[in-house]
Amino acid sequence: MNNEKLSKNEMNLSALFIGDKAENGQLYKDLLIDLVDEHLGWRQNYMPQDMPAISSQDKSSESYGKTVNHMKDVLNEMSSRMRTHSVPWHTAGRYWGHMNSETLMPSLLAYNFAMLWNGNNVAYESSPATSQMEEEVGQEFAQLMSYKKGWGHIVADGSLANLEGLWYARNIKSLPFAMKEVRPELVAGKSDWEMLNMSTKEIMDALESVEEDMDEIKAHSARSGKHLQRLGKWLVPQTKHYSWLKAADIIGIGLDQVIPVPVDHKYRMDINELEKIVRELAAQETPILGVVGVVGSTEEGAIDSIDKIIALREELKKEGIYYYVHIDAAYGGYGRAIFLDEDNNFIPFEELEDVYEEYGVFTEKKQHLSRDVYEAYKAIELAESVTIDPHKMGYIPYSAGGIVIQDVRMRDVISYFATYVFEKGADIPALLGAYILEGSKAGATAASVWAAHHVLPLNVSGYGKLIGASIEGSHRFYDFLEAETFKVGDKEIEVHTLTYPDFNMVDYVFKEKGNDDLTAMNKLNHDVYDYASYVKGNIYNNEFITSHTDFAIPDYGNSPLQFVNNLGISTDEWNKVEKVTVLRAAVMTPYMNKAEEFAIYAPKIRAALQEKLEQIYSAKI
Amino acid sequence: MNNEKLSKNEMNLSALFIGDKAENGQLYKDLLIDLVDEHLGWRQNYMPQDMPAISSQDKSSESYGKTVNHMKDVLNEMSSRMRTHSVPWHTAGRYWGHMNSETLMPSLLAYNFAMLWNGNNVAYESSPATSQMEEEVGQEFAQLMSYKKGWGHIVADGSLANLEGLWYARNIKSLPFAMKEVRPELVAGKSDWEMLNMSTKEIMDALESVEEDMDEIKAHSARSGKHLQRLGKWLVPQTKHYSWLKAADIIGIGLDQVIPVPVDHKYRMDINELEKIVRELAAQETPILGVVGVVGSTEEGAIDSIDKIIALREELKKEGIYYYVHIDAAYGGYGRAIFLDEDNNFIPFEELEDVYEEYGVFTEKKQHLSRDVYEAYKAIELAESVTIDPHKMGYIPYSAGGIVIQDVRMRDVISYFATYVFEKGADIPALLGAYILEGSKAGATAASVWAAHHVLPLNVSGYGKLIGASIEGSHRFYDFLEAETFKVGDKEIEVHTLTYPDFNMVDYVFKEKGNDDLTAMNKLNHDVYDYASYVKGNIYNNEFITSHTDFAIPDYGNSPLQFVNNLGISTDEWNKVEKVTVLRAAVMTPYMNKAEEFAIYAPKIRAALQEKLEQIYSAKI
Repeated sequence: MNNEKLSKNEMNLSALFIGDKAENGQLYKDLLIDLVDEHLGWRQNYMPQDMPAISSQDKSSESYGKTVNHMKDVLNEMSSRMRTHSVPWHTAGRYWGHMNSETLMPSLLAYNFAMLWNGNNVAYESSPATSQMEEEVGQEFAQLMSYKKGWGHIVADGSLANLEGLWYARNIKSLPFAMKEVRPELVAGKSDWEMLNMSTKEIMDALESVEEDMDEIKAHSARSGKHLQRLGKWLVPQTKHYSWLKAADIIGIGLDQVIPVPVDHKYRMDINELEKIVRELAAQETPILGVVGVVGSTEEGAIDSIDKIIALREELKKEGIYYYVHIDAAYGGYGRAIFLDEDNNFIPFEELEDVYEEYGVFTEKKQHLSRDVYEAYKAIELAESVTIDPHKMGYIPYSAGGIVIQDVRMRDVISYFATYVFEKGADIPALLGAYILEGSKAGATAASVWAAHHVLPLNVSGYGKLIGASIEGSHRFYDFLEAETFKVGDKEIEVHTLTYPDFNMVDYVFKEKGNDDLTAMNKLNHDVYDYASYVKGNIYNNEFITSHTDFAIPDYGNSPLQFVNNLGISTDEWNKVEKVTVLRAAVMTPYMNKAEEFAIYAPKIRAALQEKLEQIYSAKI
Repeated sequence: MNNEKLSKNEMNLSALFIGDKAENGQLYKDLLIDLVDEHLGWRQNYMPQDMPAISSQDKSSESYGKTVNHMKDVLNEMSSRMRTHSVPWHTAGRYWGHMNSETLMPSLLAYNFAMLWNGNNVAYESSPATSQMEEEVGQEFAQLMSYKKGWGHIVADGSLANLEGLWYARNIKSLPFAMKEVRPELVAGKSDWEMLNMSTKEIMDALESVEEDMDEIKAHSARSGKHLQRLGKWLVPQTKHYSWLKAADIIGIGLDQVIPVPVDHKYRMDINELEKIVRELAAQETPILGVVGVVGSTEEGAIDSIDKIIALREELKKEGIYYYVHIDAAYGGYGRAIFLDEDNNFIPFEELEDVYEEYGVFTEKKQHLSRDVYEAYKAIELAESVTIDPHKMGYIPYSAGGIVIQDVRMRDVISYFATYVFEKGADIPALLGAYILEGSKAGATAASVWAAHHVLPLNVSGYGKLIGASIEGSHRFYDFLEAETFKVGDKEIEVHTLTYPDFNMVDYVFKEKGNDDLTAMNKLNHDVYDYASYVKGNIYNNEFITSHTDFAIPDYGNSPLQFVNNLGISTDEWNKVEKVTVLRAAVMTPYMNKAEEFAIYAPKIRAALQEKLEQIYSAKI
């Protein structure tokens, strides 16, 4: 009866996707119909003594037939539109763009199945089965981050999870002022500056010690509308994703409190700059509300040195300075699974290569992940909260984001209702909506994430292997691009990669050899994008698809300068043009890890790129 | 080739649901498999020259077989859990509780189908087909509200849509101060008080007139973090749903700025009290940030007199007082379809009965909707923004909320990026995420809502008919309860309904005849709830299911007093106990409108309630 555990190298990713050529299409349909039948049987057998409300008579009426036909016509239009205007990111080796690929079959099946019941996880009562699953998913997230007393839940998306993280930080940071008003002995003898630099743990301990006054203290916190402007600055990487601007706007601290921290030429937060900014602010007695570390940046897949952000905090603590740390691991969060053994222990760096061989994480004995990245992932356990999106590296369909907090007590800080009601003695909130930013939410999403986590455990035996396939595929693409040049007429077109990937994203540019005009190079890359996207007509006929982005000075400062200089482009040119357009491939395909598979696609990609370049150059004439 | 329009009375609701006994189960499976096959064919035929990445060899390997079995085991566990712990709200006549019923078959199919592509509506590029559908859905929402220049989009849920509405109100209200800083001539000669009482239209006109400085003005608005505390009070009905408290907390104006407006004994906002509060605040020069009118309250389905909220604003305008109006029609929004003809005109009240007969909206010639409710719905077109949840009265699966704004220009107030990029000259944002609260969002949701709207137009010919079935069913339940009494031993148990339903919700209590002890009555109703819910064991065996709620003085003031007194319970008793527990039925089942269908279930409901009452009384002994 029990689900037998697979042994170390038995997880076969090929069994878990519908497949680029629908290789598992029949399996998908069989499983889908079995599940639908189980649901239909459930409907029929709830009170079998009740006769059907829709009679055979009804079903043979003219209006029934016409209504069914009308519905079919609408579905046909939808199907035609979907097939005409959708992006083929299920392909094994032709889509090298946004953070998309096909999604896990068990998640699709679980969603399709669970949505037939349409549970609403806002309240346990509306969704007993899927509320339980969401609680388990939250615990799995906490384990993934090595949080011993953590808690997590599913969020509609990463922007909202980030907003919720900021909400936590804001309300927690304001509590000492609220305590001073309600229970001053809790912060007795502390100056405003000291209150603004209490650690999250100190604040939570103090709050817990006066449970009877918790509601009154919360009523005096930032949620009242007070204190917002004195809480200090919110530090985000300079490449700031617009979701952080939105979040600061919405949460009311305001854009004026957002301070960008420059990134280095690897597009990671520059820790020296961070320290400088924090010290300068501290010197003016301006507190730091919090620092956001990014694990898997949207445009580069860069992984900030979380270990150094935390180490700096440890150092500054001695000087009475403290900041909340939120990790935006919307993209890279699931990547932590590649470092966990089956008992959820963080694997020593020296053992990784052997472990990967044992579990078949990479097809070749080669270490793709740097020590820097390893240390960054390890240190996540010391941050207060983490955004993690199942619908990105979890290979789960949209919309499924997530958030995890280090200390379950934190949820009291944003929760509503004086009476904390939990289900049947368990730790499942009777009304989850009172503990989170959102309200109604699909139970089906929880079933979908739960099924994925139970098929692929969040460690090296499960997700680690899937993430490994993606990383290895990205390295094959990186190596391929590094070796490539094209000839178009008498022009030689070089390919240059931006950085060695921290994770699984490869940014690259085309450059006409000998032409050191940055504007021309940007135009060339924008043209390549146009020909490698929906912009130039029917995407279903497109043999190579990618995405693009601009690194401009307002968001990037001079981080791209080293790259630009290495291409032979002058600093003057950079200062004049102020941006570089790059092509970008988030490599999520699970099929390109194998050398022989990639070898099949490499000439196809080369031919498609050659054709696009020729089109671009012939259009120029 | 074209979808032929159904004639007036041909829309047959029985064809649009899987059915309480899976009557259309085979149809559902057939359509589902056809759609899945269309998707699989699309996969296979994208670059048919590429060989499958998963070979037949792979598929016959041992690890493939073991992985498939492992996946099946996980799905089996999920299926077992779903079937054990889910709520049978698909039943035709046994579920009378939360705002749930089975959902529309075309929406389920569209979701299942579209999710195979996994489009992300955050950006047009990631979802050309479904981004277009979301834009159309937004226009349909706008037409539903009779907004001539409106715009709308899908939101994850109603709480977030309400938060977005408050975000609009906050940022718009702060603009005059921002203008004063950047382009003072726009507010020349105006006092602070006058700036705080400019109408939304005046503000939008002024902003539009200085497009070149728009970004600079926005940067000085509330999004900067300034002005938040001077924008005034946010007025919500006293029965305030906790989502409004959360929203005020998150958005940074704070709970201290939220003012509850008492509701009357019909649970609608008391307009006299509203006027009093506004005038008192104005006398102290405290501005009103906005007023929330509720169309379909969560606990009573009450519909606030939006017409009177608007009329009061018109009157106060003459005195220089203005407030933003947001309509929380998360529950009742789709109800507006019952008042629109096929050209989207609001049908004159006198013609409704004839039109309903023509379209078969009700099975009997009887008017269920009061003039009050009609006028409230009509006036929505004069409010600035509306929350509307497809996953409530749209009969669409979770999670699908929505928001509509009266004036498309409003979206500039919350948007990001200096360059406003739209797709191919059309009005579709290239990056929807820059215009809304959320980021990534499932394209499948848009397909799901789009399919429903195109099968059931948002007027009397489509949704009007479905909403009509729900309303008529609620009236049958109401009439049934009104006529009912039970005998348990020597006790007589009466049933009393709370109010004549504004919409489709019926609240009711059981009361032991002659026992005027409110605590005892509350206990009895709580016991009935326990026996009519998951609380007392397996819900799959439960023959009658309902939900419950408490009306307590902190949230309701004395609104329930008239009801309580009418039951023979004294005012002293009310003042002592301070709350009344009521049972609550949001009647969404589309099957209970027909007299003969209800007649089949009435004795079953009676018998189930009789049994529960007997269990309760025998447990007491």
